[in-house]
Amino acid sequence: MAMAKRLAAEFLGTFWLVLGGCGSAVLAANFGGDGNPLGIGLLGVALAFGLTVLTGAYAFGHISGGHFNPAVSLGLWAGGRFPAKDLLPYIVAQVIGGLAAGFILWQIASGHPGFAVDPNAAGAFASNGYGAMSPGGFSVAAAFLTEVVLTAFFLIVIMGSTHGRAPVGFAPIAIGLALTLIHLISIPVTNTSVNPARSTAVAMFAGPAAVGQLWLFWLAPILGGLIGGMLYGWLGRDRD
Amino acid sequence: MAMAKRLAAEFLGTFWLVLGGCGSAVLAANFGGDGNPLGIGLLGVALAFGLTVLTGAYAFGHISGGHFNPAVSLGLWAGGRFPAKDLLPYIVAQVIGGLAAGFILWQIASGHPGFAVDPNAAGAFASNGYGAMSPGGFSVAAAFLTEVVLTAFFLIVIMGSTHGRAPVGFAPIAIGLALTLIHLISIPVTNTSVNPARSTAVAMFAGPAAVGQLWLFWLAPILGGLIGGMLYGWLGRDRD
Amino acid sequence: MAMAKRLAAEFLGTFWLVLGGCGSAVLAANFGGDGNPLGIGLLGVALAFGLTVLTGAYAFGHISGGHFNPAVSLGLWAGGRFPAKDLLPYIVAQVIGGLAAGFILWQIASGHPGFAVDPNAAGAFASNGYGAMSPGGFSVAAAFLTEVVLTAFFLIVIMGSTHGRAPVGFAPIAIGLALTLIHLISIPVTNTSVNPARSTAVAMFAGPAAVGQLWLFWLAPILGGLIGGMLYGWLGRDRD
Amino acid sequence: MAMAKRLAAEFLGTFWLVLGGCGSAVLAANFGGDGNPLGIGLLGVALAFGLTVLTGAYAFGHISGGHFNPAVSLGLWAGGRFPAKDLLPYIVAQVIGGLAAGFILWQIASGHPGFAVDPNAAGAFASNGYGAMSPGGFSVAAAFLTEVVLTAFFLIVIMGSTHGRAPVGFAPIAIGLALTLIHLISIPVTNTSVNPARSTAVAMFAGPAAVGQLWLFWLAPILGGLIGGMLYGWLGRDRD
Repeated sequence: MAMAKRLAAEFLGTFWLVLGGCGSAVLAANFGGDGNPLGIGLLGVALAFGLTVLTGAYAFGHISGGHFNPAVSLGLWAGGRFPAKDLLPYIVAQVIGGLAAGFILWQIASGHPGFAVDPNAAGAFASNGYGAMSPGGFSVAAAFLTEVVLTAFFLIVIMGSTHGRAPVGFAPIAIGLALTLIHLISIPVTNTSVNPARSTAVAMFAGPAAVGQLWLFWLAPILGGLIGGMLYGWLGRDRD
Repeated sequence: MAMAKRLAAEFLGTFWLVLGGCGSAVLAANFGGDGNPLGIGLLGVALAFGLTVLTGAYAFGHISGGHFNPAVSLGLWAGGRFPAKDLLPYIVAQVIGGLAAGFILWQIASGHPGFAVDPNAAGAFASNGYGAMSPGGFSVAAAFLTEVVLTAFFLIVIMGSTHGRAPVGFAPIAIGLALTLIHLISIPVTNTSVNPARSTAVAMFAGPAAVGQLWLFWLAPILGGLIGGMLYGWLGRDRD
Repeated sequence: MAMAKRLAAEFLGTFWLVLGGCGSAVLAANFGGDGNPLGIGLLGVALAFGLTVLTGAYAFGHISGGHFNPAVSLGLWAGGRFPAKDLLPYIVAQVIGGLAAGFILWQIASGHPGFAVDPNAAGAFASNGYGAMSPGGFSVAAAFLTEVVLTAFFLIVIMGSTHGRAPVGFAPIAIGLALTLIHLISIPVTNTSVNPARSTAVAMFAGPAAVGQLWLFWLAPILGGLIGGMLYGWLGRDRD
Repeated sequence: MAMAKRLAAEFLGTFWLVLGGCGSAVLAANFGGDGNPLGIGLLGVALAFGLTVLTGAYAFGHISGGHFNPAVSLGLWAGGRFPAKDLLPYIVAQVIGGLAAGFILWQIASGHPGFAVDPNAAGAFASNGYGAMSPGGFSVAAAFLTEVVLTAFFLIVIMGSTHGRAPVGFAPIAIGLALTLIHLISIPVTNTSVNPARSTAVAMFAGPAAVGQLWLFWLAPILGGLIGGMLYGWLGRDRD
């Protein structure tokens, strides 16, 4: 497949991930106001994030592999599944795709009378954060540990479910629902990143406090991705 | 397969989509009254819409292709997957199937003492709307943008997951859950259409305000469907 | 497969359906009391019913076909997929399996201090009902129409997803999630039956009011099952 | 596959089960405080537990079989699917993996200001319990019966969906969603164990009351697992 189409697929898939996951959080999580059970809540947002990857992987997986996430591309490289020379273009396409979705989401959200983002509120515009910017007020250490461990397991599920001895065709279900599971655990801790492109995409619109915490949402997911990729690289190797 | 059976399948599938999706919204979303968490809320309605398509595509996909939506038929035509000569009969069968479901849903809902539809309430009888008729009060521009972008991605997921190199048999899962995802994002904006037949089916029962806004729910989903169909037509073509 | 094992599978599968579906309704739907969002609500109950069939069909489908429902056995017979001579033993096994589950559920529920069933409350012990016994107070006509239409579509999904040209192996997903969808629509109307064995299983423990309405939950689902079976019998026949 | 890798897979899979299932319960179930519908509630926790097994089985199933649960290993042995000599190492790896996850979860939860576990509260730190330690105050007899019956059916679904005549590749979906279903029924009764490793993993951190009730969450799930394994061992045997 030509590189242009692979990068277009990564752009569109990351766009879909941010539009769907962050979009459901911004537009629908709290529908009707505080305390209204009509809103989709954290469960709905967790489902939405997972479904962006499930559907995106079926739509684009056979074109680009369906990463939609710099930590995934790097983890797959660490696990021996992705060539180093493709890392930079993939990551650039993912970040730009995410930012484009953040822009479109801002346009839609702005169509609501009284739309405003408080740059100092935890989770503003679906941004990730720790400490005062963590939805549940979790410390930077808890946030870092959470993002490392969950991204490591995300890579393990990705590499395991796409392994040559795993059932064929089911990987997008396993991977998408793993992302749902990760959100079910950790939205209160960091608003859940495990994906630097997703964090960057909305931080740019959320304001300086979110941007100032972006370092953690690049560092921890990538560290976790590398650990998970290497761990499964050993575990799944058939000749050992 | 004979055209009569294909059209019967499109009629029944669109009937199922409207009965299940709009039916869950009308009958169960707000069960027990405002603030009662027993109701299925937007999350349950989003799941119901997706499951109508997931189950309908497994039941009818091998008969008619399982479109259940004029924007899908037109998008597949734009992407080179559906012949122009079948467009009109398919779209007619879809609209009539949706209207039949709207009628049956009205009969069921009328069996509730005190059933009444306020024609000026946003989302009345599960109708789609913008501005004062948008569940969250979103502007016509936000509504239009939302319907175009989400229908485009709906077509991308449909064409990608049914592509010759995608895993066989999984497309109804990807497509159905894409519709769930689309609802998780956009019920607050337009009550989510991405399907002119679904919008028409209930607008006729919701009243003149909903009918007066139907133009957007034909124009925007069809525009988005054409864009998505053409975009994936390029992306998924193997010889480029 | 020997008939004894097929009947054991139908007994166990219907036991699982009633224990899981009605059990989640009795034990968990309203956890924490009125207005407490911790409870699983109608959405959780709808999911539970569907998952009993999804999991039961993967576990028992290759033994008995996985009906777990007299209306399904009769509908499959009407559609030419099940022999008349097996109808009676299957239906008996289903009804006894359901009653056994109702008994075990009663034992578990009785382990809660202050457990009591008000025989005149709508939906008592997860029973089905219409009029004053309908969760939402729906009329007998609305209840009848709902049960007929939804059981008909249940059979259509069952026959369509197990058709020779449908993707192999996915039918339990389509059928299980169709039952979830049916519950998302109709719990407020009748507490959702579409299954005479399920209705009978809990009515016997719920009291005389529920027993007195059982006729509808035999008649309407069976009528719907026959209609759906015959309709798909025509639709799915390849030589027409 | 070398035993070291199989045990590593069981360690990691059980780690994932406890981190995801118990983690979602501790961190996200009640997000925002009592009565706040943003939290994922029992439905979200039920989904999380199921998804740990669904994703873990796709990732690790082809390495270790994907048990993650002593009652599953013992039940599979009773059903003639697992060699006696591997039981002890598997169970040890599962218990240690669970405890490691309990430790990591404690570290994360401690990052929340004001984090404290009341050792006498039902369900503290996601622990299992009966009587005063049951979330809904259910008796020891109800708890015992519930754990036996549900673990038996868990084994039936596991053995049935992995049977040679069941559709290939779908077992992780059936098994994972069976665990979701089991939680939808029984969180109010025992906080749902059906897994001695999961119960042990958090009881050690929850305090002496939870530890004192651990006997039931070893005895009942193992008894149920043996019953289910033997029952399906008969049911699924082809030559009878």
